[in-house]
Amino acid sequence: MKAVGKLREGPGIDVFDFERPKPGPTEVLVEVKATGICGTDLHFYHWDDYARKRNPGFPKVLGHEFSGIVVEVGEDVRSLKVGDKVAGEPHIPCGNCYYCRVGKAHICENLRLYGVDTLYGSFTKYTILPESIAVKIPDDIDFEIAALFEPFGVALHAVNDAEIRPGDVVVVLGCGPIGLYIQQLARISGASKVVGVEVSRYRLELAAKIGVADELIDASTTDPIKQVLKLTNGRGADVVIEASGSVVAIKNSLEIAAKSSRIVQVGTASRYVEIDPNVFINKELRISGIFGRLMFDTWYKVIELVRSRKVNLLQVVTHKMSLEQAQEAFELLTRGEAGKILFIP
Amino acid sequence: MKAVGKLREGPGIDVFDFERPKPGPTEVLVEVKATGICGTDLHFYHWDDYARKRNPGFPKVLGHEFSGIVVEVGEDVRSLKVGDKVAGEPHIPCGNCYYCRVGKAHICENLRLYGVDTLYGSFTKYTILPESIAVKIPDDIDFEIAALFEPFGVALHAVNDAEIRPGDVVVVLGCGPIGLYIQQLARISGASKVVGVEVSRYRLELAAKIGVADELIDASTTDPIKQVLKLTNGRGADVVIEASGSVVAIKNSLEIAAKSSRIVQVGTASRYVEIDPNVFINKELRISGIFGRLMFDTWYKVIELVRSRKVNLLQVVTHKMSLEQAQEAFELLTRGEAGKILFIP
Amino acid sequence: MKAVGKLREGPGIDVFDFERPKPGPTEVLVEVKATGICGTDLHFYHWDDYARKRNPGFPKVLGHEFSGIVVEVGEDVRSLKVGDKVAGEPHIPCGNCYYCRVGKAHICENLRLYGVDTLYGSFTKYTILPESIAVKIPDDIDFEIAALFEPFGVALHAVNDAEIRPGDVVVVLGCGPIGLYIQQLARISGASKVVGVEVSRYRLELAAKIGVADELIDASTTDPIKQVLKLTNGRGADVVIEASGSVVAIKNSLEIAAKSSRIVQVGTASRYVEIDPNVFINKELRISGIFGRLMFDTWYKVIELVRSRKVNLLQVVTHKMSLEQAQEAFELLTRGEAGKILFIP
Amino acid sequence: MKAVGKLREGPGIDVFDFERPKPGPTEVLVEVKATGICGTDLHFYHWDDYARKRNPGFPKVLGHEFSGIVVEVGEDVRSLKVGDKVAGEPHIPCGNCYYCRVGKAHICENLRLYGVDTLYGSFTKYTILPESIAVKIPDDIDFEIAALFEPFGVALHAVNDAEIRPGDVVVVLGCGPIGLYIQQLARISGASKVVGVEVSRYRLELAAKIGVADELIDASTTDPIKQVLKLTNGRGADVVIEASGSVVAIKNSLEIAAKSSRIVQVGTASRYVEIDPNVFINKELRISGIFGRLMFDTWYKVIELVRSRKVNLLQVVTHKMSLEQAQEAFELLTRGEAGKILFIP
Repeated sequence: MKAVGKLREGPGIDVFDFERPKPGPTEVLVEVKATGICGTDLHFYHWDDYARKRNPGFPKVLGHEFSGIVVEVGEDVRSLKVGDKVAGEPHIPCGNCYYCRVGKAHICENLRLYGVDTLYGSFTKYTILPESIAVKIPDDIDFEIAALFEPFGVALHAVNDAEIRPGDVVVVLGCGPIGLYIQQLARISGASKVVGVEVSRYRLELAAKIGVADELIDASTTDPIKQVLKLTNGRGADVVIEASGSVVAIKNSLEIAAKSSRIVQVGTASRYVEIDPNVFINKELRISGIFGRLMFDTWYKVIELVRSRKVNLLQVVTHKMSLEQAQEAFELLTRGEAGKILFIP
Repeated sequence: MKAVGKLREGPGIDVFDFERPKPGPTEVLVEVKATGICGTDLHFYHWDDYARKRNPGFPKVLGHEFSGIVVEVGEDVRSLKVGDKVAGEPHIPCGNCYYCRVGKAHICENLRLYGVDTLYGSFTKYTILPESIAVKIPDDIDFEIAALFEPFGVALHAVNDAEIRPGDVVVVLGCGPIGLYIQQLARISGASKVVGVEVSRYRLELAAKIGVADELIDASTTDPIKQVLKLTNGRGADVVIEASGSVVAIKNSLEIAAKSSRIVQVGTASRYVEIDPNVFINKELRISGIFGRLMFDTWYKVIELVRSRKVNLLQVVTHKMSLEQAQEAFELLTRGEAGKILFIP
Repeated sequence: MKAVGKLREGPGIDVFDFERPKPGPTEVLVEVKATGICGTDLHFYHWDDYARKRNPGFPKVLGHEFSGIVVEVGEDVRSLKVGDKVAGEPHIPCGNCYYCRVGKAHICENLRLYGVDTLYGSFTKYTILPESIAVKIPDDIDFEIAALFEPFGVALHAVNDAEIRPGDVVVVLGCGPIGLYIQQLARISGASKVVGVEVSRYRLELAAKIGVADELIDASTTDPIKQVLKLTNGRGADVVIEASGSVVAIKNSLEIAAKSSRIVQVGTASRYVEIDPNVFINKELRISGIFGRLMFDTWYKVIELVRSRKVNLLQVVTHKMSLEQAQEAFELLTRGEAGKILFIP
Repeated sequence: MKAVGKLREGPGIDVFDFERPKPGPTEVLVEVKATGICGTDLHFYHWDDYARKRNPGFPKVLGHEFSGIVVEVGEDVRSLKVGDKVAGEPHIPCGNCYYCRVGKAHICENLRLYGVDTLYGSFTKYTILPESIAVKIPDDIDFEIAALFEPFGVALHAVNDAEIRPGDVVVVLGCGPIGLYIQQLARISGASKVVGVEVSRYRLELAAKIGVADELIDASTTDPIKQVLKLTNGRGADVVIEASGSVVAIKNSLEIAAKSSRIVQVGTASRYVEIDPNVFINKELRISGIFGRLMFDTWYKVIELVRSRKVNLLQVVTHKMSLEQAQEAFELLTRGEAGKILFIP
């Protein structure tokens, strides 16, 4: 079967033939129906530090945001059966460390990431994963929507951490797929005003088309600090969610935040940032970071939100492509000319 | 000037002439533009225990939900001036007790209620109140909307206490004005499903017309416990807000609530209720009560929500009447044939 | 081997011979070193409603608070080995329900209790239990102390739920073993004053001897409401933890609690209680219940506290007895003439 | 009367004659009984940037941590009378801004600091301050202890923000007076282990003599990161409170903190710090800052703790001196050869 990933070190993406794997005793074989490209996959395309350190060998199939149907189960699998609709949680916890034992498996001390630390990924027709991270999805949910549960779950985990109260002004730095999902969730979580900040023209236009944010700031031409202060009578935002990973945005987040406000860090930064530690004191700020999704609290809530039609996960999808179009897909993302791209294997 | 209130003990409502009062040094005189009838006012109409115990004397003007314009200020008033648009917070805190000194003036140990414990109320043309509880309202907000800030603030305080998380199923017991406001706020605060429960046909029809709840349960014909369990795969609601004060509803709230869920008690009950204390243990339930609004945190958030057009306060208003129609207004409410009634003095 | 439990329906306790069991694939066989009698065991002694409904058959070994050494492991056991020191968590979660999947296995929808719902219990020499609920204990902790982790964990879970802040006045209703543990934990968790309330002369004397509470109130002779109000300048307690299950105490808890305070319900009540629901509103009270212990967050914290010598678990133990003395042990507890009794099999 | 402060720009401290002031209508005149030197006062001694920017003019009396007796009250003062024992809260809020109106006066947008932004301070015999920030103290509390309520309140506010749960390992960076108070409060707030970190030999010896911390780390010779990881089986601390303001310590705090832990920033830093923003994400850390004390929640809790004898505020006091010894006092502090110094005017 066709697979998209890496056959060798160095930049680039390979489309290659890959043998259909066999599930181990506690694993399930899933026929992939839809699978999204994540920023993490781009690390491997660019073959940066992150990719060099994590790559588990070759041939390696990429991809970890996906949905599909269980087509075979290992002999010890109890909770799933052939025909079940599932989506994949990429965090593979050890089950025995302190964090696994206190209900925080998503920050397991020995965490492995499916599709990153494993040779198997979802950019192919059939993939295997441990039963414990294949999340059963109700039959009435479309595969394309279910493939987006993973990034939407990140957004939901961030919004829960932000503890938005009705009436809060919420500023989201970044209008990538996760930033847009955060804006959508902020809007239905009580925000009186959702402000999106972005520098990319493509993403600003996508955000404008989607129309979730009450206000969009083009940070390439407008100072977002001044603009947010203007929108809030000089007080600043009640909640700031940083979803870009940009060092400038991270610095701005501390200025945009009002006294006694909450900042949630979601975007992974590529380098260190210099900050004034006194700002935490003078403003009584709280900053926290989130990692992945709660296992599996976040998943249940995502399912509830999707089934209630309060959210629209497909609105960030700009392209649906075949695995054979992988080269084009990664180029589009590198040029910043796509929202979320789904492969339909 | 005309006023609506009580001239003597016993059931009934009086419309009488009342001399325009003079503000004391720290008081303001307000020209009332709109004022709503609250359940508390009905106590005085029916002259029940509550009214008998609290009545401060005669003649007494009723009314404590209102907005207006400052037309005269006492000599020591600093924060308000003639021409300011204001709404009234009825809680008059002492300013010196433990709760006042720790930022919880709304549960002051020596609390007096404007329009209840005072001879002055808002069912008239001109009223006086302490500067400290006249809340300045932006000029772009209509008087009728501002007159509804007080009950809407109760709803907001309740929803904040409920800590709704995106995806939660929220059941609201009672579809009176505050119950309907709670449903509206739950809907924009992340609820995946808002369920309203009510026994009155009039209120159910009003709720249906407003169309905020995802599901309405007529508790006069359908068992709300069974219905909520059915809607939640047998698990129960993540959040229950009791806004009816009915003893049956209070008992039901404990059955409707899922394990590890939150119940907020808003409706004042007329008598004791017998409960199984083990339900708190077996379900790890949390129940809390709210009283009035935070002073003045809730007010600021209400203003933000109204200005952002995320909420519609007028949708519960079914009648606008003159002070002279007081008798008719109180009869309508007693028969349960009105939502919120506003007097336009 | 000797075992203590039930051979037939009806009141009473039996000491009988019981065959040493064999562990299943995911079970461990534990040599019991110390095991405590809990109030739950008394239900079976008195053969009350609770016992009649839960009894799984005969012969049934009682006991679920214990420690011991792993002497045999099933073929699929991975996390434990022969020679490990363990204590038993009695909650046997299903692992697949909503609560198990969101990190709240202790309130599992299909929960079974070891020693209650199982034929095997700890009042014997060798017992079996699922690997998943045998908690590994550091070698430097005594068996008798480890056997008390289960009830101490209940106390810790309650104190965590109470969110005591430094300076709070904490009232604990009940001076049984768990009440005494709660008092001890409240004392080291910031309470400015710990007040114990109890009606039993034996328990009051035990509490006085232990000397943890700053003040003890004999509720058989002194009105605890008046006394707590007197101790707090009329304001009431910041935190009330109800650990007696007495209907009178549960009613009192609502009166003893200050405005904006927190009540935690720990004691299981034998019947319904009539309360004024308006007290939640007028005081902005929060009441919550706790069930068992967090799995396994509470256990880790108990281990830390014991190893740091900040707590003394043995101080509530008044008797150590052999299994053959079971009749005497249950009689002592029924007469209220014991704190915690440990069997040393 | 003698006063200690500044007569001119530039480094140094002046002892000079100052006329006894007259209280305005809402002010009280207080006879100072004890007053402590704070790090803020040292800014003026060294005449650094902070002092240059804030100095309100000359002659300026320094000092803002103090207690005394009301000897005269302004004509509009209602809550205090001659003879009252008081301590001074240095935060002078405006009373009208958003934060003042939502119960967070301590972070008022127009905040002025008594003794910093005012010409009047407490390093003298008689001082004036607004009635609103003179906190009445029970008669049974010593003046020297009451003079320490201000810095102890900072420590308590920090410990409350840290939300220590019983069993937590708490690391406090810095063993100055506030760091030592934080260690003391952590110890009585449930910490299983309190670890103090410091580089100054003098402060380490003072901390060792006081004996509150379970473990002291001399960061001038031992790597505190390695040492804390060793003490916690490689997991890190559950709570880190940074009370030194050292850039190295702030960086260390992120390494010392366990996953899912809480960091509270208390120490004001003298310069920017470069951090890895991904640490917030990878560890799901929460960092928050605190500013002053809650007005007046913290004060009430401090009074409760002092009256219950659960804390000892005098143990950090190493010197009591007369105003005339000001030069020597400031030199001792500059050389790091003192804990807290009290002036007894």
